[in-house]
Amino acid sequence: MATLTNTQTVRIRWGDCDPAGIIFYPRYFEIFDAATAALFERALGITKHEMFSAYEFAGWPLVRTHARFMKPTRFGDDVTVETSVKFGRSSFDIEHRLSLKGEPCVECQEKRVWIVRDADNAIKSHPIPEAVLKKFDV
Amino acid sequence: MATLTNTQTVRIRWGDCDPAGIIFYPRYFEIFDAATAALFERALGITKHEMFSAYEFAGWPLVRTHARFMKPTRFGDDVTVETSVKFGRSSFDIEHRLSLKGEPCVECQEKRVWIVRDADNAIKSHPIPEAVLKKFDV
Amino acid sequence: MATLTNTQTVRIRWGDCDPAGIIFYPRYFEIFDAATAALFERALGITKHEMFSAYEFAGWPLVRTHARFMKPTRFGDDVTVETSVKFGRSSFDIEHRLSLKGEPCVECQEKRVWIVRDADNAIKSHPIPEAVLKKFDV
Amino acid sequence: MATLTNTQTVRIRWGDCDPAGIIFYPRYFEIFDAATAALFERALGITKHEMFSAYEFAGWPLVRTHARFMKPTRFGDDVTVETSVKFGRSSFDIEHRLSLKGEPCVECQEKRVWIVRDADNAIKSHPIPEAVLKKFDV
Repeated sequence: MATLTNTQTVRIRWGDCDPAGIIFYPRYFEIFDAATAALFERALGITKHEMFSAYEFAGWPLVRTHARFMKPTRFGDDVTVETSVKFGRSSFDIEHRLSLKGEPCVECQEKRVWIVRDADNAIKSHPIPEAVLKKFDV
Repeated sequence: MATLTNTQTVRIRWGDCDPAGIIFYPRYFEIFDAATAALFERALGITKHEMFSAYEFAGWPLVRTHARFMKPTRFGDDVTVETSVKFGRSSFDIEHRLSLKGEPCVECQEKRVWIVRDADNAIKSHPIPEAVLKKFDV
Repeated sequence: MATLTNTQTVRIRWGDCDPAGIIFYPRYFEIFDAATAALFERALGITKHEMFSAYEFAGWPLVRTHARFMKPTRFGDDVTVETSVKFGRSSFDIEHRLSLKGEPCVECQEKRVWIVRDADNAIKSHPIPEAVLKKFDV
Repeated sequence: MATLTNTQTVRIRWGDCDPAGIIFYPRYFEIFDAATAALFERALGITKHEMFSAYEFAGWPLVRTHARFMKPTRFGDDVTVETSVKFGRSSFDIEHRLSLKGEPCVECQEKRVWIVRDADNAIKSHPIPEAVLKKFDV
């Protein structure tokens, strides 16, 4: 089943960069977390903030992430981030491809789990709602 | 009334610094926010996390902050942060003095308000509990 | 003399927010630093990265900043940041007005100094180049 | 060949956490980057800042990182970070094990490359200096 992808342009900022003049790599994960939210926002038509009331949803914490850094980026660069998803039952795999002028810079694969809050306000994994899955069909 | 102060040593990290090789100034505010929590932890003997259940307390958002930057710091520097407080009724003034080897680098004054959550989970200001104030007497 | 201003829309992200669900205030200073660069980029037609080779320029570190926080913002909010400048000889005053749907949320005044590197690579303040000032005339 | 390891205690701060009340995962990578510097500082007896003048050294950018998140941490937690290294010729593998009260929370493997600046100030990979390797023998 083909699923929707999302592409964003992100400006690398002075404050994202370290004394080597290139991006400090934890900033990439900030970009990827926002790109994950942007993918869902594009599919669902609502922000992550609105998802908390619209769906059985309490977040999508990471189980694991793997990133390869091929080429550094620096402040002033407008990078392209392409984000795609593959859904499991109560988890999903996200892939981010970050490039600059067509040249791949970073590739990142994440596994995230869909969580809800139970009666005691504790978090637990939960099947991704059908209503969410449908919105990703293309 | 004299009140307790707190002094911490903080290591400036590579990732706190920008392409000029010096600290990116928003990182100072991260340091100052943590220094505010450390002052209360020293006085109360519990972490900020524990304060949420121990007191009528939902946070201490800023009303305003004012900072003067006298001398830059850089990665590898172990800076000293002295934090003191003056309590009002439902707000308090925090002062941070950040220095390196005795030389003043940054001075910051903040006004923060003590908040609680009402029945609807909305936040509102609230008098600082007497039990908190007492712990700061020295 | 009237000078150019710049207005940006900035999305507040999940990762910018703290356990209270509102923005962690040091993130505002990251936004304001980027807004300062955006103002110059609009006026000069080049990025901050390009300014290092185009002008006698090695940065604009802060001398002081003052911020008032009137209303919190949260993830999913698209805030408006209006940035204006008043130039002195070798320093300048920047003002940022951050609002949400027309309601003022944060006001920030910064004084920054124009610096260059001398022969020993040390930084020193320097008059703002005439070529820069001219581009801000409107 | 056995090599030196380093263990640090790190306080998770309010500002490291997101609206779910747990650490925002990019902050782990900030912790791991600082832990890498701390390992070298322990072995070499000098800070990363001092390494730039003491050795042929211009940084250790990441080639890849892989992290598994087993258990969330939250503000007020004092986590333990154990960092170890395996050296190749011009790259090295770093492993970080972050735990709370003996329970594993995050495991991270990184590959980093030792770089120097050539005559044109461009960065290139370079064999890790023998003088550095010797300091890690235990």
